[in-house]
Amino acid sequence: MTPVNEFELIDRLTRDLPSHPSVVVGPGDDCAVLDLGLADRWLLFKTDAVVENVHFLPDTPPEKVGHKALGRCLSDIAAMGGDPVSAVVTLTLPPGFSVERAEALYRGLNALAARHQVAIVGGETTANPAGTVISIAVVGTVPRNRCLLRSTARAGDALFVTGTLGGSLEGHHLDFEPRLVEARWLAREHEIHAMIDLSDGLAGDLPHLLHASRVGAELLARAIPISAAARLRARRPGGKPARTAALTDGEDFELLFTVSPSHAIPLLDAWKLQFPHVRLTCIGRVLSEPGLLLRDPNGVRPLDAHGYVHFPSC
Amino acid sequence: MTPVNEFELIDRLTRDLPSHPSVVVGPGDDCAVLDLGLADRWLLFKTDAVVENVHFLPDTPPEKVGHKALGRCLSDIAAMGGDPVSAVVTLTLPPGFSVERAEALYRGLNALAARHQVAIVGGETTANPAGTVISIAVVGTVPRNRCLLRSTARAGDALFVTGTLGGSLEGHHLDFEPRLVEARWLAREHEIHAMIDLSDGLAGDLPHLLHASRVGAELLARAIPISAAARLRARRPGGKPARTAALTDGEDFELLFTVSPSHAIPLLDAWKLQFPHVRLTCIGRVLSEPGLLLRDPNGVRPLDAHGYVHFPSC
Repeated sequence: MTPVNEFELIDRLTRDLPSHPSVVVGPGDDCAVLDLGLADRWLLFKTDAVVENVHFLPDTPPEKVGHKALGRCLSDIAAMGGDPVSAVVTLTLPPGFSVERAEALYRGLNALAARHQVAIVGGETTANPAGTVISIAVVGTVPRNRCLLRSTARAGDALFVTGTLGGSLEGHHLDFEPRLVEARWLAREHEIHAMIDLSDGLAGDLPHLLHASRVGAELLARAIPISAAARLRARRPGGKPARTAALTDGEDFELLFTVSPSHAIPLLDAWKLQFPHVRLTCIGRVLSEPGLLLRDPNGVRPLDAHGYVHFPSC
Repeated sequence: MTPVNEFELIDRLTRDLPSHPSVVVGPGDDCAVLDLGLADRWLLFKTDAVVENVHFLPDTPPEKVGHKALGRCLSDIAAMGGDPVSAVVTLTLPPGFSVERAEALYRGLNALAARHQVAIVGGETTANPAGTVISIAVVGTVPRNRCLLRSTARAGDALFVTGTLGGSLEGHHLDFEPRLVEARWLAREHEIHAMIDLSDGLAGDLPHLLHASRVGAELLARAIPISAAARLRARRPGGKPARTAALTDGEDFELLFTVSPSHAIPLLDAWKLQFPHVRLTCIGRVLSEPGLLLRDPNGVRPLDAHGYVHFPSC
């Protein structure tokens, strides 16, 4: 057995995958992008799973588990600027499962789906001696000329993030609303260069965008929008400092994107009118030199904080 | 906790799912069918999962596990007469998993994908304290006027099945080739009325087709093509009689379809020329009266054998 973490494993597993002429973007972005011959749109395709004792606990309200399972996939559709169309759900249940629990899980999932006009078109349910896993796949569409990738940030771009970051385990990870409306508005109304959703923490996901775009970035420590939950947790004995939490906690499901610096102010102004209750913050800028730097009152230093990694090295 | 079996559970969970104007066929057929606006084709969408200790064992060669996981989904695309385009894979792995095993699993999956021009465009890998689950979703396309459903069998139709049935656990369930080529040829060249793939056994799946089409059927016991594996297992102490195995064993992944009786002989003749090494057998006929009957030398009697059901009533 070789020691490996999740990202190295995915890298090894996805190195030589079979492709097809219809594939516009394969593994590595928030969604895959397929050209099926639609005149003005591409197909988006994404899968994601939540696992008991990893992404939720046996006593997590099942409605919230269902909401989270679908919400994670919809957040990936949002990160491309897309419209979700339809989802299929695989539910594996342990022996002695409660049907009422399975139904409650679907209630949470269905409510979110209905709110975003997502049809649930298949429900595979199978026994799993070991526990509950909910795996969801979503298809969506995106205008060909408005598909937002991770790989197209440019040196000099301003870096923006929606909402506030950190402390998601206090509850946000179970009831976040995927930023579909905001993302579509951004893609339609503004020249967004690159976008990603935050699932592994700012310090974990920003390097994915930078790596894909072959650029670096400087973050302004003081600008990072810290959630009330992260501040609350920081005050508890042994709590992680709030700014560290905002940088490294996972499951924010906010949008991180880049625009050319000349668009930064007009975008902020338009955003405030369009989404007065959702924060939008410029947190830094894209650099031509690879690497991630953090600027604070003491100077500029490389940021070595890691986002949440599902598999610790073992 | 309410006692329930798998089919009842799925029925309850899929009763009030959110829909969408683009949904042509929702849950209940082998694949969902979506109209995304492509001029001459519909989109097919399907998910399926294999679970350790349910669909494979800890010592099953991982290449075969990967093959089976994708093969099950491709068999569902075949059952609609469709062309698979692309798949996404969710792999949940227990702590202490072997990377070599995960890579071998992908080797088996990739080889099957490459053979059928299926692009693997996403690979989510996550920790699962409980064990290995492989959930796969596939999208494909099908000509609008050639999409084969379960619900369109007609009284008087001849019932056909490909290959031989039963005893899949001897090995077929791990190395079957999904009948994509045969299904496309059937959909293109012949007036097939209804089709389904056999995953829960002939006696389990045929009622799904009959129920969806609001018809019944009479099977000819002597005509049912029994696999060599089913005969072999029948000779072992305590072995299930071979014909019972052919009726009730799961995971044959053969095609079951209906055509008007006047097409039966021309179809058989054309099939022999096209697929000389794959058996095609007329096993009965569709009746207007609901119910499933078995005709053998002793007469005609209702068939109460059940296909494999994942959840026994509990």
